[in-house]
Amino acid sequence: MSEIVTAGILVIGDEILSGRTKDKNIGFIAEYLTNIGIDLKEVRVVSDDEAAIIEALDALRARFTYVFTTGGIGPTHDDITADAVAKAFGVAIDYHPDVVARFRQRFSEAELNEARLRMTRIPDGAELIDSATILAPGFRIGNVIVMAGVPTIMQAMMDIISPKLKSGARMLSESVKANAREGDIGTPLRAIQDAHPETSIGSYPFLDEDARPNTNIVVRSRDADKIRAAMIDVETMLAALKTVKP
Amino acid sequence: MSEIVTAGILVIGDEILSGRTKDKNIGFIAEYLTNIGIDLKEVRVVSDDEAAIIEALDALRARFTYVFTTGGIGPTHDDITADAVAKAFGVAIDYHPDVVARFRQRFSEAELNEARLRMTRIPDGAELIDSATILAPGFRIGNVIVMAGVPTIMQAMMDIISPKLKSGARMLSESVKANAREGDIGTPLRAIQDAHPETSIGSYPFLDEDARPNTNIVVRSRDADKIRAAMIDVETMLAALKTVKP
Repeated sequence: MSEIVTAGILVIGDEILSGRTKDKNIGFIAEYLTNIGIDLKEVRVVSDDEAAIIEALDALRARFTYVFTTGGIGPTHDDITADAVAKAFGVAIDYHPDVVARFRQRFSEAELNEARLRMTRIPDGAELIDSATILAPGFRIGNVIVMAGVPTIMQAMMDIISPKLKSGARMLSESVKANAREGDIGTPLRAIQDAHPETSIGSYPFLDEDARPNTNIVVRSRDADKIRAAMIDVETMLAALKTVKP
Repeated sequence: MSEIVTAGILVIGDEILSGRTKDKNIGFIAEYLTNIGIDLKEVRVVSDDEAAIIEALDALRARFTYVFTTGGIGPTHDDITADAVAKAFGVAIDYHPDVVARFRQRFSEAELNEARLRMTRIPDGAELIDSATILAPGFRIGNVIVMAGVPTIMQAMMDIISPKLKSGARMLSESVKANAREGDIGTPLRAIQDAHPETSIGSYPFLDEDARPNTNIVVRSRDADKIRAAMIDVETMLAALKTVKP
């Protein structure tokens, strides 16, 4: 059996906590990790505060195979992620010669001010996450992957770093729309879950187009056969429900 | 000066971590809390796992004035929030007579199955968050407010519980579109932040309609005069930038 590979996400930014900016990165990374066989186990959102960043980062990196951070690597005073990560790892941080060289090609001497140079500061020993289209690079140090907060840039960074990550057997899923209220299927669904302990069965209520309560049932496992076996029981249960109804 | 009131959010649900469901509650609650003068300090997302829920809940409730949870209060086997909260508080949990009575009015004896009755289980000593339009009630116990994961229901619950919460002086903000790249304003913006320590100045890069890099600057404080003073410096700085440009 392949190894289980786990991850945490750390979103860094006052603007998310104030509600001013609505996060779009958690959902993207979550789906991305599922698709490459990495289990996302926990997400934390903290403010632009060094102590808060370090505490959350240390908790997550001790616990999971990988930690993905977003936000706080830009040129302004509130961008403190790189420094906080260096401090968490107990390493120095300095202007990275390769990044500085690229910035010198891109910017005039007048443009290459203190703020822009801040974006070239990378913790010692980190590997850059970089491409021709990315200005401020992300980086990886140990099991921590530091990425931009701007969704398009973060997404480009995920594409660069993901082939270098180990991944486990992919979590598979099948889903079915129950056409039943969650309360009508909860009891038999629990029995099906108990009978198929190597699957994880989720039940997600929603209102359908006619504003009637409906439910999506999702069966997840790394083994397609185990999913199918559980799903057959789910389908049998749902069919039985329909014949009972008036 | 009014007290600072803080909060954490705990989102509970495998479906968020798998990426299957994109969370819409964090942004809503974040904005809601800002508007009523409560500072959101941290968000965590955990799976439908009792140990994970209790650990996160205990960490957040020890640290902040309030904790808002979403998800896991429905009728199915994966809805374990009420039990986890009872365990975290060390109290018993049982079928709540008022909620059972309401369910009896609403459902036939056949419909009032084990799954539906699960939704009437409320930790001892909790106060219901309930209305005629809410089926499964939320509840408040200590400083923890337990709400549904379905956004429309969660939002109704926020409206019910929020008048009962203490709130601090509201965090105010002013923002301005810089019409400048973040790297061009980072250095002077840091000087302005240093000169106005009782404000919090954020800088948020984005691509404008013409796909050109632009920046929103946001000044936040509980004191409108302090915001204005900092914003005057920001505006002066931006005007100076424009006269320098070719």
